[in-house]
Formats: sequence, C-alpha cells, structure tokens
Amino acid sequence: MRPLIPDYLHEVLAAVAPKTSGEIASYIPELATADPERLGAVFATVDGEVYGAGDVDVEFIIQSISKPFVYALALSDRGFGPLLDKVGVEPSGEAFNEISLERDTGRPRNPMINAGAITAHSLAGPEGLRAEERMERIVQGLSAFAGRRLEVDARVCASEMENAHRNLAIAHMLRNYGILSEDPRGVVDGYIRQCALLVSTRDLAMMAATLANRGVNPLSNEQVVDQAVVRQVLSVMATCGMYDAAGDWATQIGIPAKSGVAGGLIGALPGQLGIASFSPRLDAHGNSVRGVSLFERFSSDMGLHVMEVPPTAREVVRSNRVRGEGSEATRILRLQGGIRFAGAERIVREVLDSAPSEPRVVLDISLVHSIDDVARRMLLEVARRLSLDGQQVILVDPESIIPDPDPGEGGSITVVRESEETLNLMAVDHGRLR
Amino acid sequence: MRPLIPDYLHEVLAAVAPKTSGEIASYIPELATADPERLGAVFATVDGEVYGAGDVDVEFIIQSISKPFVYALALSDRGFGPLLDKVGVEPSGEAFNEISLERDTGRPRNPMINAGAITAHSLAGPEGLRAEERMERIVQGLSAFAGRRLEVDARVCASEMENAHRNLAIAHMLRNYGILSEDPRGVVDGYIRQCALLVSTRDLAMMAATLANRGVNPLSNEQVVDQAVVRQVLSVMATCGMYDAAGDWATQIGIPAKSGVAGGLIGALPGQLGIASFSPRLDAHGNSVRGVSLFERFSSDMGLHVMEVPPTAREVVRSNRVRGEGSEATRILRLQGGIRFAGAERIVREVLDSAPSEPRVVLDISLVHSIDDVARRMLLEVARRLSLDGQQVILVDPESIIPDPDPGEGGSITVVRESEETLNLMAVDHGRLR
Amino acid sequence: MRPLIPDYLHEVLAAVAPKTSGEIASYIPELATADPERLGAVFATVDGEVYGAGDVDVEFIIQSISKPFVYALALSDRGFGPLLDKVGVEPSGEAFNEISLERDTGRPRNPMINAGAITAHSLAGPEGLRAEERMERIVQGLSAFAGRRLEVDARVCASEMENAHRNLAIAHMLRNYGILSEDPRGVVDGYIRQCALLVSTRDLAMMAATLANRGVNPLSNEQVVDQAVVRQVLSVMATCGMYDAAGDWATQIGIPAKSGVAGGLIGALPGQLGIASFSPRLDAHGNSVRGVSLFERFSSDMGLHVMEVPPTAREVVRSNRVRGEGSEATRILRLQGGIRFAGAERIVREVLDSAPSEPRVVLDISLVHSIDDVARRMLLEVARRLSLDGQQVILVDPESIIPDPDPGEGGSITVVRESEETLNLMAVDHGRLR
Amino acid sequence: MRPLIPDYLHEVLAAVAPKTSGEIASYIPELATADPERLGAVFATVDGEVYGAGDVDVEFIIQSISKPFVYALALSDRGFGPLLDKVGVEPSGEAFNEISLERDTGRPRNPMINAGAITAHSLAGPEGLRAEERMERIVQGLSAFAGRRLEVDARVCASEMENAHRNLAIAHMLRNYGILSEDPRGVVDGYIRQCALLVSTRDLAMMAATLANRGVNPLSNEQVVDQAVVRQVLSVMATCGMYDAAGDWATQIGIPAKSGVAGGLIGALPGQLGIASFSPRLDAHGNSVRGVSLFERFSSDMGLHVMEVPPTAREVVRSNRVRGEGSEATRILRLQGGIRFAGAERIVREVLDSAPSEPRVVLDISLVHSIDDVARRMLLEVARRLSLDGQQVILVDPESIIPDPDPGEGGSITVVRESEETLNLMAVDHGRLR
Repeated sequence: MRPLIPDYLHEVLAAVAPKTSGEIASYIPELATADPERLGAVFATVDGEVYGAGDVDVEFIIQSISKPFVYALALSDRGFGPLLDKVGVEPSGEAFNEISLERDTGRPRNPMINAGAITAHSLAGPEGLRAEERMERIVQGLSAFAGRRLEVDARVCASEMENAHRNLAIAHMLRNYGILSEDPRGVVDGYIRQCALLVSTRDLAMMAATLANRGVNPLSNEQVVDQAVVRQVLSVMATCGMYDAAGDWATQIGIPAKSGVAGGLIGALPGQLGIASFSPRLDAHGNSVRGVSLFERFSSDMGLHVMEVPPTAREVVRSNRVRGEGSEATRILRLQGGIRFAGAERIVREVLDSAPSEPRVVLDISLVHSIDDVARRMLLEVARRLSLDGQQVILVDPESIIPDPDPGEGGSITVVRESEETLNLMAVDHGRLR
Repeated sequence: MRPLIPDYLHEVLAAVAPKTSGEIASYIPELATADPERLGAVFATVDGEVYGAGDVDVEFIIQSISKPFVYALALSDRGFGPLLDKVGVEPSGEAFNEISLERDTGRPRNPMINAGAITAHSLAGPEGLRAEERMERIVQGLSAFAGRRLEVDARVCASEMENAHRNLAIAHMLRNYGILSEDPRGVVDGYIRQCALLVSTRDLAMMAATLANRGVNPLSNEQVVDQAVVRQVLSVMATCGMYDAAGDWATQIGIPAKSGVAGGLIGALPGQLGIASFSPRLDAHGNSVRGVSLFERFSSDMGLHVMEVPPTAREVVRSNRVRGEGSEATRILRLQGGIRFAGAERIVREVLDSAPSEPRVVLDISLVHSIDDVARRMLLEVARRLSLDGQQVILVDPESIIPDPDPGEGGSITVVRESEETLNLMAVDHGRLR
Repeated sequence: MRPLIPDYLHEVLAAVAPKTSGEIASYIPELATADPERLGAVFATVDGEVYGAGDVDVEFIIQSISKPFVYALALSDRGFGPLLDKVGVEPSGEAFNEISLERDTGRPRNPMINAGAITAHSLAGPEGLRAEERMERIVQGLSAFAGRRLEVDARVCASEMENAHRNLAIAHMLRNYGILSEDPRGVVDGYIRQCALLVSTRDLAMMAATLANRGVNPLSNEQVVDQAVVRQVLSVMATCGMYDAAGDWATQIGIPAKSGVAGGLIGALPGQLGIASFSPRLDAHGNSVRGVSLFERFSSDMGLHVMEVPPTAREVVRSNRVRGEGSEATRILRLQGGIRFAGAERIVREVLDSAPSEPRVVLDISLVHSIDDVARRMLLEVARRLSLDGQQVILVDPESIIPDPDPGEGGSITVVRESEETLNLMAVDHGRLR
Repeated sequence: MRPLIPDYLHEVLAAVAPKTSGEIASYIPELATADPERLGAVFATVDGEVYGAGDVDVEFIIQSISKPFVYALALSDRGFGPLLDKVGVEPSGEAFNEISLERDTGRPRNPMINAGAITAHSLAGPEGLRAEERMERIVQGLSAFAGRRLEVDARVCASEMENAHRNLAIAHMLRNYGILSEDPRGVVDGYIRQCALLVSTRDLAMMAATLANRGVNPLSNEQVVDQAVVRQVLSVMATCGMYDAAGDWATQIGIPAKSGVAGGLIGALPGQLGIASFSPRLDAHGNSVRGVSLFERFSSDMGLHVMEVPPTAREVVRSNRVRGEGSEATRILRLQGGIRFAGAERIVREVLDSAPSEPRVVLDISLVHSIDDVARRMLLEVARRLSLDGQQVILVDPESIIPDPDPGEGGSITVVRESEETLNLMAVDHGRLR
C-alpha cells in the first residue's frame, strides 16, 4: 500500500506553490537573501511519527516561534504567579510591531508580542542566572522540545544586534517600568540569540507535537514542561498567536499557532499532532502567505479546528444487563469509549435510573480507551455510594486504566484484572469472588 | 444511590454563596431591584439531561447573553460573507462600554461588543424584514435554542429605551459608516427588546447545550443553526466573550462563555455540556462575581478547559493478528475508541508497517465509539489502496458507524454488520463470505 | 490717490486663484452644488472699515465657523465655571471627525470639535430655555457679532438632518455621560440650524473684527460679549481652531482662526482686524485650500503673527528734565507711546534712577496713546510713593487717558488737562499751581 | 521712592508660600534632596533690567526648560525644513511621559515632549559634529541666551544616566524610525547633560527675556537666534509647553511657557519681558505648584495674556490740518503711537478721505514710537501714490524711525530730520524746502 499522508501533503504543497504573493523579510541581509521558493510542511504525531513534504530539513531561524516555548520555560522555571505579574495574557488587537504595554504598570499585554517575549526571555531559568547561563537554559529547553540540540546562527545575531533598536527601545521601556530588572542590552542580546536558533520544519513540527502531547517530547519521552504550562501556552497561542489576525485565525483555522518572520509557522492540536510549515514570503500581518493557506487546508480537510467536535456515535454505556437472580443477581454495566465529564455523567445517570437492587454491580471498563480525572473520580464515587448502600462493586479493568482505585471514605471496590472480556465473568466470578 | 451531580452543584453553590462583593447593575430600576442573593447553576448535557441547584427557574433578562445566539441567527440567515463584511471577529481588548469600531471603515471589532451585537441584530432574518418580523425571527430563534417560547419583559424595554443613549450613539455612528442601513432608533428598539428576553438559568443552560451539541437542541432535536455557525460562534465566544478579561478567562477557565449584566453567565463545552449560572452582583468587568467563581470551580474540578486533553490510555489499534495460513490467511485489525485524524493516522501506519500479504484484511470497528469525517475518509482510502493491491477488505461495523462506505475509484469493500464481536468472525466468514 | 488695500487684496486673490486642488464638501446636495471657483477675501478693521475683493457678498452656510461665536455666547450666558465643567480647552490633536471625549467623564476635549460645539450650543442662553428660544438667542447673538440679522437656510437644515447620524451619535453619547441634559435629537436639530446660518465673507470678517475689537461690534458699537470671554475664545481658536493642523497653523500663520466646511475661514487679530475668506475647495484637514494660502500671505506680508512683535523704536520716556532750581525746581518726565507693563516698569525705573529731590514732579502723558490697567496702576503707585515722600505730583493728561486718577492710600495727585503741549507747562504751572 | 516691582514680587511670593501641596521629583537622589521650600521669582525686561525676590540665585538643573532653547539652536543651525521633517509642531494632548510618535513615520509630535527634545538635541550644531562638539554648541548657545557661561552638574548626569531607560527607549525607537541617525546612547548621554545644566532663576528669566526680545540677549546684545526662530519657538511653547495642561495654560495664563521637573518655570512675553520662577514641588502634570500660582497672579495682575489687547485710547492720526492756501497750501498729518497694519490702514484711509489737493503733504512721524515692516511699506506706498499724483511728500522723521525711506517706482519723498517738533515746520519749510 502506498503511504497516504505523504500523498496528501505533496498534493497540498502543490496546491499552494503557485502563490507567490507577499514579501520576504528584509531587515537584515541574512533574511533578505532567503530563497523565497522554499516550501515545506511536516506533521508530527503525538506518538512520534513524522510526515513531511518539500523542504523539511532546510534550516532557518526560528524568530517569533521561539516565543511560546520560552514562555513555557519561564512558566515552568518561575511559576505562574511571577510570570503573570510581569506579562499579561490579553490579546492586544494590535500589529506585531506595536509596543502594547499596559498603561500605568508597563506590563506587556501578552507573551506573543515582542515586549512580552523579551520579558519571558528574562524570566527563563531560575532567578540569578548569568546571561550565558540563561541562554544555555533556553537552548537546552528548546532543544528538549525539538528532540535534538539546536544551534544559534551567529551571523544572524550580529546583523540583528545592529538593527535591534526597536527591541532595545522596548527593553529600556520595560526596565523603566521595573518589568525587567536587568541590563536591557544584555536581555535584548539574549533575546536575539534566542530568535536566531536554527530549526528545520521537522524540528518545529516536533516542538509543536511536544505541546500537543501534553509537554512530553514524542521521541525522547522527556516531560519538557508540565501539563498546566502547556494548557496556558496553548490558550495564549489561541488568542494572541497571530497578532492582529488572531480572531480571523481563531474562527477560520482554530488551531493554536505561532508564526515567525523567517517564514515558519507552527500549530499544535492538543492530543493529536504538531504541524509546521515553511515558506518565506510574508503577508501584511507578518505571517507566511503559503503557510496560512496550508493551515487553512489542514484545518478544513482534517477537521482540526479546536471548536470542532465529532458526533459521538456510540453510547458510553455499551450494555446494562442483569445476570442471575435473587442473591446471585449481578448487574453488569459495560462501558466503552473515552470518558470525560459528560460520559461519566451519563454512566451515573444510568446507575440512578436502573436503581440497582442486585447484591452485586459490575462496572466493566475493558473497552474504555481513555478516562480523565473527573470521570475517574465520578466512577469511584458511584462505587462508594453503591457500596454504602450495601452492594458489592466489582471493577473489571484488565489494563489498569484506573490504576489504584480508591472509592474513598466508607466505600469498597473489588478489582478484576485477568479477564480480557466480560463474557466469562460469571464463571470467573463464581469461582473467584464468592 | 444518592444523585452525585446535584450534590456537587449544591456543594459548589454553598462554597461561593459567601461571596457578597460586587454590585448589581442599576442603570434601570428593573435591574436595581433584583435580589442580589439569588444564586443558581445548571448543567445541561448534550443528550438533554439537566442538573440544577439553587434558583434555577427564576427569570431574569438575558441581556448580552443574547449576543452569541443572535450572531448565530444572523450568520445562519445571511451567510458568513455578508456578516464578516459588517462585523469583525478580533478581540478588542477593551472594556464592555467601549465603542471599538475599526478606524476608517467603522466596522465593529466583534459581535460581543454592543456595536457588533446591534449590527448582528439588524442582520437577523432575511433581508427586507420589517422590524417586528425581525424581532419575531429573533424571539423564535432564541426560543429554539432554549427549547421553549421566550417572552420579552415589556417594563424593562420601556426603562431601557429611556436610557438607551449609548446604544443610540453607537447605532447612529454605525449608520454614519453605512454599517447599519436602517433607522438607528428602530434597530436599537429591537436590540433592547432582544436584550429584555426573560430566561431562567435552566433556559440558558439549554441554550448553551445546543451550542455544545453542534447546533441541535438536545430536547427538541431541532437543528437550530448548522455546525459551521456553531464553530464560528464558539470561536468568537472563546476570544471575545468576556470583554477585557478575555485572555484571563481563556487561560484560566478555557470554556467559551458569555455573561450578561443581569447576572447570567453561560459556557458551552463542545461535545459535552452547556453550563449556566445566575447571581446578580457584578465585578468591575461587568461579569457576575459568583458566576466567575463557579466557572473557575467547574473548569478545574472537571477538566473542562478546551486546551485540556486527557491522556489516551489505549491504542486505537486494539489488536493486529493473522488467522489462518496461506490462501486462508486473514489479517484482523481490531480498532477501538474515538478516531479522529491522529487515530486514523495511527491505523494507516499500522497497515503500512504490517505490509499485509494476506489475501484478506479485516478492519473491525465494532469497538470504535466515534469517528470523524477525515478519519472515515482515511480508513476508506486504506481500504481502496489495499483492494487495488489485490486484497479483499472486510469492514466489520455492526452499528453502521460508517453508514454507506464507499472506498472510491477502483476500490471495493465488504461490510459485515451482523457480528457483535469478532471472536467468531472466522466462522461467519467461512460460512458466508466465501 | 488710488486705494492701497483693495489693490493688495486683488493681487493676493489673483495669486491664489490658480490653485484648484482640493474637493468641495459633498455630503449634502446643497454643498455639492456650490460653485468651486468662488473666491473672496475681506478685512474688517476694529474701527469698522471694510476692505474686500472677489465674492464678498455671496452667501454660504457658516458651518463650523459658528463654533467660536456660540462658545462665546455660552460663556457669556452661563459663566466660565459651568462651561468648563462641560467642555474642555485642550487641543485634541485629532481629525475633525473624531469624537474626542475625555475617558471616564465624557467631557468633550474642546469647543471646536463637534462634541464640544454641540455641548456649547446646548448651553447658549440662560438655563431652561425651550429649543426655539435658545435658537433665537443664537441667531440674535451671531447677528450681533455680524452687525446684521442672519437667516437660516432651511433647505440645508433638512438635508443635514437626514445625514446627521454622526452628530446624533455624538449627542447621544454626550447625553449618556450627562454632558447634555436634554433630548439629543432636539439639540442636534438646533445645532444643525446654527450651522446653516447664511453668511457672506463680509459678515464673517465683521464677526472676526468684533472678536479683534474686544467683543465690541465695530459698526454697531454693541458689546456683544465681554473681554474675558473674547480672550478665552481667541485662546481656544489659537490652540484648537484648525483641527489636527493646529500646530502648523499656530507656528506658520499665528492668527487665531476657524474654518468651515462650506469654504469659509476667519482670523481675528486682537486689537487690529478681522479677516475672512471664502473658497469652497477643501484640503484633507477640511480647511479651504485657497483660504489657507490667503492667510499664509496675509500673515507673512503683514506681520500678523501673534508672536511677532515689532521692535520698539522709541523709549517710552521721551524726556526727563529739570526746570527751575531750588524750591522752584520741577522734574518733568514726558512719556509717549503705548504703555503696558514693560513700559510702566521702564518709567518706574526712570523715576527711581533719577531719585528726584525736586519739590515737584510732572508726569506728562499727552503723547501716550494707550495705557493698560497695570500700567495705569503702576503710574499711580509712583505718584503715591512720591507724594508720600513729600513731593507734589502733577499729571498732565489733556485727553483724560487716565480718567479719574486715584493714587490710593496716602497719595495725592494734581491733574492738568488744559495744556495740549507741555512746552508752556512752566508758565501755566507758575500761574496756576502755585 | 521705594521700588515698586520688588515690593510686588515679595507680596506675590508671600501669597503663594503657604502652598505646600505637590511632591518634589525624586527619581534621582540629586532631585530628591532638593529643599522643597525654595521659592524665587524674577522678571527680566527686554532692556535688561532684572527684578527678583526670594531664592533668585540658587542653582538647580534646567531639565525640560532647556527644550525650547535647544529647539531654537537646532532651527537656527539646520533650518526650518530639516527640523520640521524630523519633529512636528502639533500639541500631543498627552502627559509628559508619553512617547507620542506619529504612527507610520515615528516623527515626534512636537519638540516639547522628550522624543522631540532628544531629536532636537541631535540636530543642534551643523551636521557632522562629534558628540562633544555638539554638547559644546549647546552649552555655548544656552549660555548666550543666559548671558553667562553655564555649567553641567556632573553628579546629576551620572545619576540620570543610570535611570535613563525611558529616554533610551525613546531614542532607540527614534533610531528605529530613522529620525535619529546616530548612536542612541550617545544622543541620550548628550541630552542628559543638556538637562543637567545648572541655572538660577535669574538665568532663566534672562533666557526668557532673550526670547521676548526677539532673540537678542538684553544684556550682551548678542543676537542669539533670529526673529523667525523666536516666533516658531514661542508658538510651540504656547501650544505645547505645558504638556496635557496646554489648553488650560493657554486660556487662563496665556504666556508662552515651559516648566522643568526641578521646579523651574519660564514665561516669555513677546516685546515685554521674561519671567522665571523656582519652587520644587510639582503637581500631577509635572509643573511647579507654586510656579503655576505665581504665573496665574502675574498674568491676571499685569494683563500679560497674549490674547489681551489694551484699548487704543488715541487715534494714530493725531491731527490732520491744512496750513497756508493755494499754491502755499500744505496738508500736515501728525501721526503718533505704535503703527502696525491696523494703524497704517487708518492712516491710508485718512489720506483717502481727505483727498488732499494741496501741493504739499507732510507726514509727521515724530510722535510715532514704533512702526513695523508692513506699516512702513504702506506709508511709503501712500507717499509714492501721492507723488505720482503730483504732490510733494515730506516725511518728518527726526529720529530716523524709517531710516532709508524709498517709496519705490516712480515715487519721491523728502525727509526732514532736524525738527524735533512740527510746530515750526512751516517756517523751516518755507525756509528750506522751497
């Protein structure tokens, strides 16, 4: 069988290739000489598979795409409170080159604009690091997201530093308001080095996949940042990632995303995959023209919009039967699918509606493929309440989806792990549970 | 067994009840005399179950919570293009009482601010409606969301109209820019009536549940608006629903939401449930103080943040085995869980990695509880490619999750619906398929 | 002799006539059909002489040029405090169509923008007037400035009212903030009538001359508003009169001015003259293209810039001599010119430096052509101090420039009115004063 | 006689001394330790007389009061065009610590805000100066305004440079827009030294008097900058000098002014005097509390408002008589006072109204104390036209107020310089002119 996703990627790339509108960034020579025809796209799944088409291994500088990752590191290293004191999370509704500091406090509106990104840079690593140590923390952190050691493009740094007046202006203003507590030049120097990290489209897709995979790099399995940090970063990307086109992007494409002026663009779809593209020509918002077109296709072709939700075809309660009679009677609820709050609610309701009087209730979760915290707690609460009512509760969980079930105060539960299917439960049951 | 979710709701209500900070809206007498102690919360699931605690049936005026629903009606009645020409989708980053028109064009920044909501009001129903006809369209549409006929509070309308100077200012400015094409007073009059619809917390939860349920009212099963409209509305609620606290809400709570000045607050969690709360005292942003606290609890207790994704405990490919040998050999892939792009990709990869040489390949989806468009298309493409390679492809789909499978040009597929489990597939198979 | 100023005006008009850039205002039919080639300019001196060239008697609508005059009436009728509470005096630095209300209070930034002008309109006349009464007050007041009864163009009013959405928006917003306390529609209706007053360039020049003449109409000699009001109005015209080109105008032209969208433009040079021009084509700021050119010529040709000050060629102390000896000795100071603070200071210094020991000091002001309050008080204080030192002080003031001289506590002064020249003072003196 | 103005100054100082509201600037230690009770005020007349009261010789740092003077130097050294390309003249309506760059171009709104002042600093001296040379130009230039060599406070510079983040931010932003073409740190370093010049209240008054005296230092008689520059600087001070209180100041006080954060305040009244005050406590606008009170007193006590114009008590035409008869007839117009355009117009009219048929017309300007360019040209034009009509024109000008009278093409004029008074003109006349 011929591979299917590479076919798709090649087809989509061919579709956007004729778009030659937009201009490459030219404020430094290293960007101005980029080949405007470069084009690549990569999907990286949360279990580490990578699909690519086009120029997936060409290196370019990461620029603003570093922002969400360094924000993640700063959140991780300093905690939410200190970060939120210094950088807001509100969309600015302004163009990428606005300063957008809050009146009075001087707090940057969000970490996706330069002022916020420079501040986040200064907060990476523990307090008290020297500039080189902080830079090493950032290189190491972004490398962990990417799954390989990234390097800085020294020539670009030199060029950028010569033209860094806007960022120096921002950094001095931040220092003036006490948002930065260090030498502004040193911070800008570090920030420029951060932005000059060399990445390929493949690297970016893997970095995005690490976000999509709850902070765990799909290849190295390293937990780079924790899940709460990822949630914060994705939320901010969703509302502030695409500058003044944030609302357009959120409605039409609906994938938390970030673009860079060298032509890179990433999207992270929680639980599913990381996406990256590369094409240097930019639109008036500073986003890659073809990159935006690619993401439009990806979103609509593949239903990747975060507000898109597939219809649930099957009930979470697969069956609800009673076997045996009298004191031998056992109510068996076979559950299936992924259970979150809404599914757990449905199960609770099934139990209430059945008003089970049987001495034994079996909750069979062998066909459940995922269960989140609240659903787990609700299931265990059901078990607790039934057992308080005098019923024996048996949880059939062969793959330990609920590893160490504790129904809590006054409740008790019996776990059966051996049975792959519940068909033979009664036999097992009669032989073992009585 | 004692019901579990009502217990939870009562507990959370008790926890927020002591919060007496904030002020009730007082710009019209009808609001000023509201009982500030009122407190209620309701969950409505996408299959129509309703859980409530507190003052769930007290009626109050809907106010700004009407905005997303009327925007939905306008999108539905006029189409996306005409709406986007007149109302943007960018967060304004401004307080609720800002005008926020785009410079030059006068286009309101988004439909959640008054300027945008007044414009959306004027675009509900087909072109050319008289004011009363349009109002009837709106009452009927919002009633369809709620699942019962809603009524306007006439006393409130009279009071509001006396104090409608800000909205009249906005409407005249919109008329000045040609965004409104009708008499501004008439539009404001209608808008005020829209905002004076009487709803209970129960109604609001059901309206939110209709959004969460892809536009279908869970009780009436009426498709009020289509799925693309819902996606647009939820996206806009996510980025613009909570005024200048939009970013805080998006990061901390992460539920598309909308608040009203009478104390109502709704949230819609796609695919799961609609939530509503009612408590009249407002914070400085104009959002219900206790309402915000309730949603904070709901989001963190129940993992309802849209950027939160549960770990997948089980592989989508439950097993991949070969039965029989030689020309009798059959490869059986048993799939499970909810399949979207990422799951489908995993299945494609499994097939490619297995490089099946067996004359028969069985794709058993009896344990798959949901599958979206792209995943369905990908599965069928796998079937097509395998059959082009000369292999017989059998889809075991007892509950018709893929109702009318067509693998497309050159492909063929055999569907088996009878077997509940695949254990006996080979027998069935030998008896029937050969 | 051929008249000199008409020659000049004709020459300047001929110089600007070829300028055909700019567009006539076209938002109502009555403006759109104006003849774009109309061109006129008028000088009106503070003693009532009028010089004109071109279309000086063509009538057009006054539009925004009514603003400073209605502001003057409101200041006059209500007092400074109430006016400043409702309308600020700060330049807005914004274009003519900005709303420019102060955040929080909603107070318009200044009376030259529409929001401020509408507010000023509502404050003309005493409190409690009905709309028609207030309108009559305004017509009467502006007529008094012009020196003839002005009429409203009814057709224009009807057209304007149909397109008054921006002004209605502003008025409702002002009402919302409590800046307006009446029905916004009624106020806008009145404001539109105010703006539709028909004036000729001649009228406008006379209105400006009334401002230049300290509030007194040069022809009727009516004190339309008092001097403090005029000072306030001229100050506001100087800083806010030309919209976002205020600074350019203040530096390059330096004449307090106001323009109207029908093509009128006025300037008032305190103490000297009123100027008006008329040419309908407008620049991007909404100011008459040729009008601006005319004023540039007037200012530079005639040194009319308010910050321009001519060198003082002669000392205010014309001579300082002693006649006679011993007990007959008389010190005679002959003063000349216009005396304000700086001149008075010079006189005081002269007296101090002379340290007069003569029994008699004569202050001869027969050649003084003007003296202001402070200078008068200083001169009298000199007299008082000298008389306290035991010296006789004689004021020679044949034309009663200081009508009722009172040197104050402990001082005494002798006034001589008969003598036209001081040449014979000693004789008179010997004969009469001894 | 006891001096009168010092009495007045002492009295006013005593009146404001009890005002102890406001705070001294404290962002650097050198300012924070200032004695808040310091209080001084100085008047300096355009002929060099200085009156002071209080702490007139205490030195403090000039701060923002340097801005108009350095702007004057830059205008003088580079010309109007280059300056206006880089720095606007529009009031910003914003607080003193706003950046206020024009969108798109980055041009500072005016030279009184820091961005404009830093730019003006960079443009002092001819192009191509090294930083020290430019600094020397500025020190020399401001010293010329003051009439003595000023020195920089080195300790203040060091402190300021440590806290110069806002100015560095501004300078880098200006560099980013190409408004500055040099190293931003170097320019800020120079700007800080400029602001750290030590001045006394006496110095400031003399600097202001130099502006009031058309650019000529009243003591040294050095023409520091030319008159066009002074007019530009005074205009900008009038509209932009007092930050966001510019309109309040322009209406209530009406003296072109500038304040500094160390407590200094200057005002320049064209043609009359320079004023300075010193009191370190500042109001919320950053202006000296007592300084503002002092200027309010000065303006109202002494009629110093630029829009205040004294009534002209006497006609500019003192008399218009005919002596002799027939071919001996001579028309004698005796003129008096200060003659600007309005006065000249009056004279022209007098001549026209008289329609003189006498063979000889005498224009006696012995009592004219000042005459500006336009009036001089008009008088000569009258002479020219009369002589073209065949009349002999005699100008009696004993003090050469019109030094080299040339009536222009076809005109002729006879000048009489000897006669001090015109009483004996006829005799002289008969004896000499025939």
